[in-house]
Amino acid sequence: MDRDAILLTPGPLTTTQRTKVAMLRDWGSWDAGFIAMTAELRKHLLEIVHGEGTHVVVPLQGSGTFAVEAAVATLVPKGGHVLVLDNGAYCKRLGKLATLMGRKTTILPHAEDAPVSAAALEAALAGDASISHVGLIHCETGTGVRNPLREIADVCSRRGKGLIVDAMSSFAALPIDVREIRFDALVAASGKCLEGVPGMGFVFVRNEAMAGAAGNSHSLAMDLHDQHVYMEKTGQWRFTPPTHVVAALAEAVQQFVEEGGQPARLGRYTANCEALVSGMARLGFEPFLDPAIQAPIILTFHAPADPRYEFRAFYEAVKARGFILYPGKLTQLETFRVGCIGAIGPGEMREAVAAIAGAMAKLGLSSGAPNRH
Amino acid sequence: MDRDAILLTPGPLTTTQRTKVAMLRDWGSWDAGFIAMTAELRKHLLEIVHGEGTHVVVPLQGSGTFAVEAAVATLVPKGGHVLVLDNGAYCKRLGKLATLMGRKTTILPHAEDAPVSAAALEAALAGDASISHVGLIHCETGTGVRNPLREIADVCSRRGKGLIVDAMSSFAALPIDVREIRFDALVAASGKCLEGVPGMGFVFVRNEAMAGAAGNSHSLAMDLHDQHVYMEKTGQWRFTPPTHVVAALAEAVQQFVEEGGQPARLGRYTANCEALVSGMARLGFEPFLDPAIQAPIILTFHAPADPRYEFRAFYEAVKARGFILYPGKLTQLETFRVGCIGAIGPGEMREAVAAIAGAMAKLGLSSGAPNRH
Repeated sequence: MDRDAILLTPGPLTTTQRTKVAMLRDWGSWDAGFIAMTAELRKHLLEIVHGEGTHVVVPLQGSGTFAVEAAVATLVPKGGHVLVLDNGAYCKRLGKLATLMGRKTTILPHAEDAPVSAAALEAALAGDASISHVGLIHCETGTGVRNPLREIADVCSRRGKGLIVDAMSSFAALPIDVREIRFDALVAASGKCLEGVPGMGFVFVRNEAMAGAAGNSHSLAMDLHDQHVYMEKTGQWRFTPPTHVVAALAEAVQQFVEEGGQPARLGRYTANCEALVSGMARLGFEPFLDPAIQAPIILTFHAPADPRYEFRAFYEAVKARGFILYPGKLTQLETFRVGCIGAIGPGEMREAVAAIAGAMAKLGLSSGAPNRH
Repeated sequence: MDRDAILLTPGPLTTTQRTKVAMLRDWGSWDAGFIAMTAELRKHLLEIVHGEGTHVVVPLQGSGTFAVEAAVATLVPKGGHVLVLDNGAYCKRLGKLATLMGRKTTILPHAEDAPVSAAALEAALAGDASISHVGLIHCETGTGVRNPLREIADVCSRRGKGLIVDAMSSFAALPIDVREIRFDALVAASGKCLEGVPGMGFVFVRNEAMAGAAGNSHSLAMDLHDQHVYMEKTGQWRFTPPTHVVAALAEAVQQFVEEGGQPARLGRYTANCEALVSGMARLGFEPFLDPAIQAPIILTFHAPADPRYEFRAFYEAVKARGFILYPGKLTQLETFRVGCIGAIGPGEMREAVAAIAGAMAKLGLSSGAPNRH
């Protein structure tokens, strides 16, 4: 079949043809048409979190990590102290970038197969009054675990700490309502659950947090306060925007609204996840996480115990059948990951399971069952 | 006519349909196909400057300014001292980002209508031995003036200073050969004279300069040394790449090669520039710069003296005729800019002049002649 492979990854994702076709036009970044597109996009994004009047959303060129770094740089003053709740690779990355830019950073370690703990946060904050900000990954893409955003936000709110949330792989799929969840900044990106193409991030910032953020950033390009002020004044991005990526995201958001917004998207991804897990179970595969803490975004599976299994060959055999898997990111255990997100439905997930079954037959794997653990 | 407007700007530019169509596919960033595309693209870029074996090229997510900031952050040690040769808005931006990240920065001011001076650089270096690096904009997009890259590079080389060149709007059009011009870093971007779409920059770095650059960067996302090491090891980008932008650039570079490379591109842009200048002269318009220092990239024209002229109305009237102009960026004089770059030829430039003539008739402007100055 001459069909593009379907991406079962945490992003870039499979997008609709309609989203990609939106890139078949060149926009002048200074032109009224592009300025209006940016404004409309920002309005739609703010509506998703119900942030009209209380929050702003600031788009930023680059990958999601650039936007996370920008959020920390802009919102944590140079004398601030960031506590990072760590249960995976993306938490560690947040800690690393905060440390590198010179902010005092403390890591609060957790097990990789469990959510971070509001009680542990409470104790850490009680033990060190110098902590000014807390860093949280909403859905840790390293494993797929869903962290308790609301509980963490409540602790931060009660203790008057700023909360910076990396919601890269959860935003637009899991519910996030600023009227119920208080944060200083929440970060997401174009190429995730909104199903745009990669190339830009965006950061929701509470108005009061933004008001005090002038001059914090060590970086010109990543200064969200400066980007915000300029955009409010002129409607333009400060530096050349990725115009085609913006156009694709605007088109993807339109489809998101037409589909029924976040509840509909969560419904589709949940159905994808169920089709995947039940199909994989029939082949013997076991998910790494307890279903109770699993977000329907990306699933980590244990590698099969069969000695004929080797990830690279497995990956290639599944790819030859039209589906792109993702490697595991755990240091202690051999695993692989399968994404449930993108412009795909349960039908594609069942086809993916069939492709995995075909790959197993080709490689002579009798079962996906892992070693007893 | 239902034709997309042609962008006569310093970027984003008008690109070919073939370049845009390359974005109609979703790539997995971890997949062998995308890794091969990145490797091939980097190889082609390095060939353009004849840097095989002596230099590396490191792509970076974001706009060109992100790549300039990354070059300074990665190559200037924390105790370094940057001298910025300033003859326009982009020079000032380079100085600002170096200052913000905490590097000692000195600005050497020049007039906006003249190139920066190698003799002035020589004197400044003689007067302050603490200067470790020099920052130069090759073609200052604020006015369009071409700065003397070779002369500046020779001074830096003789005095053992690191040179960081922002070649954003000159790369791939003006000749740059690393066998003749010594620099530590030279920065360009996807959406300029290579005629890709905006969304990524890339930085050429001399091997010896890169070897000493570990740990300089205050920023994780902008650490070109880290990006380089990871890419050499895995073939992958460290963080999610703008896959569609990369695919478009790869396709654009293929067309660049087919056209005949840099000499052919310079030839076309020179013909564009000549068609523009001669046509505008017939309408009475006068360029801001002496032709001897004008790069055929973007031209600054004096605003007409006619009191009926107002840029916004002029811009809209030209746009209604299918061409997007660019505002001026000079503080003292009223000007506007017209780009000569992108997937356009002298035919389009003559049409642009006709559109400008039509706009003048519509607005009742009898001549483009400026005030005597």
